[in-house]
Amino acid sequence: MRSGHSLAFQQFEDVLSEVQITPAENNDADIENLITSSSLNVETSAVQAPFRMTWSAESDWEPDDPDAVSSGSCLIVPVPVNDERGHLLRSVGYAEAAPAESEYLFLGDGTFVLTTQYEQSIAEERIWFVSEHVRCRSSVLRTSAGSGVLQTSFASEVRRLSS
Amino acid sequence: MRSGHSLAFQQFEDVLSEVQITPAENNDADIENLITSSSLNVETSAVQAPFRMTWSAESDWEPDDPDAVSSGSCLIVPVPVNDERGHLLRSVGYAEAAPAESEYLFLGDGTFVLTTQYEQSIAEERIWFVSEHVRCRSSVLRTSAGSGVLQTSFASEVRRLSS
Repeated sequence: MRSGHSLAFQQFEDVLSEVQITPAENNDADIENLITSSSLNVETSAVQAPFRMTWSAESDWEPDDPDAVSSGSCLIVPVPVNDERGHLLRSVGYAEAAPAESEYLFLGDGTFVLTTQYEQSIAEERIWFVSEHVRCRSSVLRTSAGSGVLQTSFASEVRRLSS
Repeated sequence: MRSGHSLAFQQFEDVLSEVQITPAENNDADIENLITSSSLNVETSAVQAPFRMTWSAESDWEPDDPDAVSSGSCLIVPVPVNDERGHLLRSVGYAEAAPAESEYLFLGDGTFVLTTQYEQSIAEERIWFVSEHVRCRSSVLRTSAGSGVLQTSFASEVRRLSS
């Protein structure tokens, strides 16, 4: 369950989506490509726990076509610097569709904080587990020029273990 | 702007609300009463920056009466233990209406985390500023017996300075 808040227009968007997470192999050619084309100067061996994420979402913003489902897929490649922080490469960005490079860190209570500088915007995402199988995810999108906050979003995610 | 996620029923609630925050005087009789009737064994002098919060909210869950506005008011009394953590007394609780005693702490990045044990449930709230005048607030409500997560909510709050 994901809610978007568009602050300037006070508009809500409510989205139901399914997210599928699948481990990727460290020797996957797409990982090599993502690293090579990134600004990071690292070997593939620096990668830890890469995975693919696919999603399909149904938004209440498409009342003309209630069955409209948007979907996508993305390769996510963490490159830790140490136990507390690192880089994260994505084949598809969150705020903009181009490949994205993010910095991540863990807060003292385990909250994962991801910051991504896009061409037009800066996104900050936070992920924290509230029980073993429920996690929350928030995002804040601001203009890269100033500190204007464009929109926020919040997702409550329930884990379904694959059989 | 506040969104509620009811996890078991996959229901969204979208709420527009105005929150007003007014400093209270340390010698306010209501503060004395709240402290005396609490489990804390402290003097009123231990209180820091008490305030009153009043709100009026319009929810999309009342389609029969779109002008229905719920409102309320609450006295909030922080009693710091040190710079990082402390107690917080409320004349009206968040998850249940009775007066509530919470524990708070600040994470390394300044995120405020508030935990309240109610009779039937445990609430965890988080507040963090994403710019000088925009803050986010999340809450998670779980059963006090187990770790079942009942509902979550997320608010994007824009500060309007009083003139």
